[in-house]
Amino acid sequence: MGSNMAQHLMNKGHQLVVYDVFPEAMTALADKGALIAQSPADLAQRCDRIISMLPTCSHVRQVYCGDNGVLSGVKTGTLLIDSSTIDPNTSQEVCRASQAKGAVFLDAPVSGAVPAARAATLTFMVGGNAAEVEAIKELLLCMGKNVIHCGAVGSGAAAKICNNMMLAIGMVGTSETLNLAKRLGLDPKLMTQILNVSSGRSWTSEVYNPVPGIGENLPAGNDYKGGFMTQLIAKDLGLAQSAATRVNAPTPLGTLSHQLYRLMKNNGYATKDFSSVYKFIQELEDKK
Amino acid sequence: MGSNMAQHLMNKGHQLVVYDVFPEAMTALADKGALIAQSPADLAQRCDRIISMLPTCSHVRQVYCGDNGVLSGVKTGTLLIDSSTIDPNTSQEVCRASQAKGAVFLDAPVSGAVPAARAATLTFMVGGNAAEVEAIKELLLCMGKNVIHCGAVGSGAAAKICNNMMLAIGMVGTSETLNLAKRLGLDPKLMTQILNVSSGRSWTSEVYNPVPGIGENLPAGNDYKGGFMTQLIAKDLGLAQSAATRVNAPTPLGTLSHQLYRLMKNNGYATKDFSSVYKFIQELEDKK
Amino acid sequence: MGSNMAQHLMNKGHQLVVYDVFPEAMTALADKGALIAQSPADLAQRCDRIISMLPTCSHVRQVYCGDNGVLSGVKTGTLLIDSSTIDPNTSQEVCRASQAKGAVFLDAPVSGAVPAARAATLTFMVGGNAAEVEAIKELLLCMGKNVIHCGAVGSGAAAKICNNMMLAIGMVGTSETLNLAKRLGLDPKLMTQILNVSSGRSWTSEVYNPVPGIGENLPAGNDYKGGFMTQLIAKDLGLAQSAATRVNAPTPLGTLSHQLYRLMKNNGYATKDFSSVYKFIQELEDKK
Amino acid sequence: MGSNMAQHLMNKGHQLVVYDVFPEAMTALADKGALIAQSPADLAQRCDRIISMLPTCSHVRQVYCGDNGVLSGVKTGTLLIDSSTIDPNTSQEVCRASQAKGAVFLDAPVSGAVPAARAATLTFMVGGNAAEVEAIKELLLCMGKNVIHCGAVGSGAAAKICNNMMLAIGMVGTSETLNLAKRLGLDPKLMTQILNVSSGRSWTSEVYNPVPGIGENLPAGNDYKGGFMTQLIAKDLGLAQSAATRVNAPTPLGTLSHQLYRLMKNNGYATKDFSSVYKFIQELEDKK
Repeated sequence: MGSNMAQHLMNKGHQLVVYDVFPEAMTALADKGALIAQSPADLAQRCDRIISMLPTCSHVRQVYCGDNGVLSGVKTGTLLIDSSTIDPNTSQEVCRASQAKGAVFLDAPVSGAVPAARAATLTFMVGGNAAEVEAIKELLLCMGKNVIHCGAVGSGAAAKICNNMMLAIGMVGTSETLNLAKRLGLDPKLMTQILNVSSGRSWTSEVYNPVPGIGENLPAGNDYKGGFMTQLIAKDLGLAQSAATRVNAPTPLGTLSHQLYRLMKNNGYATKDFSSVYKFIQELEDKK
Repeated sequence: MGSNMAQHLMNKGHQLVVYDVFPEAMTALADKGALIAQSPADLAQRCDRIISMLPTCSHVRQVYCGDNGVLSGVKTGTLLIDSSTIDPNTSQEVCRASQAKGAVFLDAPVSGAVPAARAATLTFMVGGNAAEVEAIKELLLCMGKNVIHCGAVGSGAAAKICNNMMLAIGMVGTSETLNLAKRLGLDPKLMTQILNVSSGRSWTSEVYNPVPGIGENLPAGNDYKGGFMTQLIAKDLGLAQSAATRVNAPTPLGTLSHQLYRLMKNNGYATKDFSSVYKFIQELEDKK
Repeated sequence: MGSNMAQHLMNKGHQLVVYDVFPEAMTALADKGALIAQSPADLAQRCDRIISMLPTCSHVRQVYCGDNGVLSGVKTGTLLIDSSTIDPNTSQEVCRASQAKGAVFLDAPVSGAVPAARAATLTFMVGGNAAEVEAIKELLLCMGKNVIHCGAVGSGAAAKICNNMMLAIGMVGTSETLNLAKRLGLDPKLMTQILNVSSGRSWTSEVYNPVPGIGENLPAGNDYKGGFMTQLIAKDLGLAQSAATRVNAPTPLGTLSHQLYRLMKNNGYATKDFSSVYKFIQELEDKK
Repeated sequence: MGSNMAQHLMNKGHQLVVYDVFPEAMTALADKGALIAQSPADLAQRCDRIISMLPTCSHVRQVYCGDNGVLSGVKTGTLLIDSSTIDPNTSQEVCRASQAKGAVFLDAPVSGAVPAARAATLTFMVGGNAAEVEAIKELLLCMGKNVIHCGAVGSGAAAKICNNMMLAIGMVGTSETLNLAKRLGLDPKLMTQILNVSSGRSWTSEVYNPVPGIGENLPAGNDYKGGFMTQLIAKDLGLAQSAATRVNAPTPLGTLSHQLYRLMKNNGYATKDFSSVYKFIQELEDKK
């Protein structure tokens, strides 16, 4: 993800300084002209715009606030842009710590996954004040095609986890609907066509159909390899659940989808694409 | 529903014979030239194409197979078209009884609800053999704009309940997503825009948004009056559940949506539009 | 199940006439003195009290109302006792057909499973009028230790499926509670002791604990072999769901438990004891 | 809760120093001989054994670690006993802060609610090392009848939220089972008797039955007033959910019970006893 984004920034003429805990991730970029930092703190001393892409809340906290973290080296006025998918609370916490150092922090998670990162067609959902969002727009548009200002810091993260919760609900729902249709004697392809001209249509039935052989070039047609892994959507659903618990919002289907993806993780589907829920719920005789 | 459909058939020049348990429902049609039957059996003796639109499985069974029912008066070769939303099993059962009398039965439930019935833009999902479907197409197109052949008898009903199960999942999911977004500080209108350009979009977020003030001319903006009542989608979800139990298909989100609409029915929402689930899950302070 | 029950009746001095679709099931009983019938109708002509134990509603319908069924041979005044676990609706339907032939039908499903059948400690939940229940009590007490009169015909079946729905909820709930405790660092055995002196206790935590090594002589300690199979509780939960849908009763946890057991059936647990839900929800690293 | 516990300690001859944000809560105790502290810090300077009972994690953090908190006045070697129901994580966090000040922190939440506090029959679930637990046992037994050592610090809290999650599952499950039984024509009192001699029994069916008129002196018989409020069990279920998300444990029924209690909170049941879920799921006609 990160290396695709870095590549596009370099293609647009930006000089990069990069840091990753895996040195080999940096070598490829260095070969193309990027400079290598020794630590997040070192990187912060050498840059005035910093973009991070990390797997979890605790990584974000450590990279920004830990020993040798970004904030221990950051210069006044630096623009800090975190594109990780994390809890809005963590974004707000790191934002406060950044302000104490005179830096500006924005959350800017992306939608679109690896293919969109490769094609520079990501959508950025950004939390921060309007002027700050304006200031980073040019940079983000090197890597994507849409920048949506969602509100104050944390709202980019909030929008991302809300969208992904709905995505999971759509995927589980479409999968169980097409499986039920099949069991009732309907061809899933025909049922998909009916959904897509009816009130049951969604992004999942139209663009990312979970049944093998309906869409083209999808994980469903490749034994659910590649794509958006079950363990990753389970993580995003966990973020949504924590946030929902904190703000007292009932999310019955989001919560149940979370449970299902957690069960799938525990039953051999962790690294399969999240559309493999179609297979998980399928009857034994239909699984081949 | 039925009277709108009858009206369009008359507009296209068809001479109707009508029957309803509520005499006043027939008077309006009689004023415009329809003849009135004394019973379903009487109607069957006078017509060779019959269309029924009834609320539940047991009504369908009674109207066709009961005393003075259609089948006690039906002529050989009559085309029987049932547009009720019922269990596929019941369609198949009535079909067998019809064949024993030499008549042809097809299930042809509709999507689009009352507004589409009024505008003659219904979609018919038809179960029957190809030649029979062809034979009734002209008649259906007087009342709608799409005729989809789904497979053998019962498959129209199956497609209808599958679509409506997914519709309910989309509605509950979109409602909880927009409510969570609001609780996290995002404007539901902005969140809707984000969903609609992202992987979380569905018919519900785009066309029939449950948040007051986002879509135009929707029940959400009119205190959830009109539209598709909670008690009706609860009924359709019950049909989906019975069918899923019979064919051993897991439907976790469909099942939970069914439970939620049943709870709503028991807590004052029975006659509200089904998008009122947004209000049902809302926090007390947000309900005004 | 049935052969254990038959054995106890013979032990108490009753002369039996038996019928089973599998001839070998009858041979063992014949060796001990039972007579063999050629069909349910034949059996009905030779007996004035008949007990049936069958797997599903359609078997019950066929054995009583089918060709060569009990009702085609039944004598006036015969007491018909069905101990199958079926939908209350089916019991009532067969009851009406029996009355039309002058026979008396009662539903009398059992709780206690095979070990209780073997030990003659079954509990019978009986639906019928008080005098009829009194009339069959002596017979039932040959095979069990409790006879509970639940109400009119069908209420024995209703009580049985209600109890089993709650049993499933208790089993899934206890399993997820003990798994959560374990993940939080508590010993499941200690957590069981705490539950059992607290408000979280249930039959499942006390008598039929799902964690290997806590209870004695349980399926949990034998790789979940033997016991009450996942596919059988899934069937009972399906009966509960159909009944709940018919009478408009919300059963959120019963419904979700049904879905989980259905998913287990489709993922390799069909013939495991129903306490294997503990394993199904366990984290991969904990499964060994 | 707290004042009942304090009373028992005084009855057993202990001299108390008390602190509460509501002065009137202290007056009653002062009238009976307790001394009044000016702040948690003041109290800490005057005592070597301190017991706290607080509503949420953030209250615990503030009372111990905030300005004028216990830890700003605590003496070396003081035994700190927190009986609040909170997240195990918070207990561990406050424990570490206590150790840094040379004090000993144990979590010791209770089961039994107000009636047990009044009767001094609470059960304490304690996290800490064995010697420390031994050291506080005499004090806890002034207020309760059981002290269970659950493991390291945080395990008392873990045991409490696990038990309460199972309690909620039992309550919702028993309620929907008894409501389904009623709809199928069974008397809920008879169904309760059947459950209680069968595999569907639980603390909820035996001791705290949700149906009005079955148990004696229960909230169910008093329009669900008093008892354990919906908003409090919703809080405990939120703690269980956060913990389950953190440790990746699937809790499908616990999660759904959480959602239901959250929905009840938003629909007029916030201050009703948690057994009012029976009323929430009841059909409109049955609610009277």
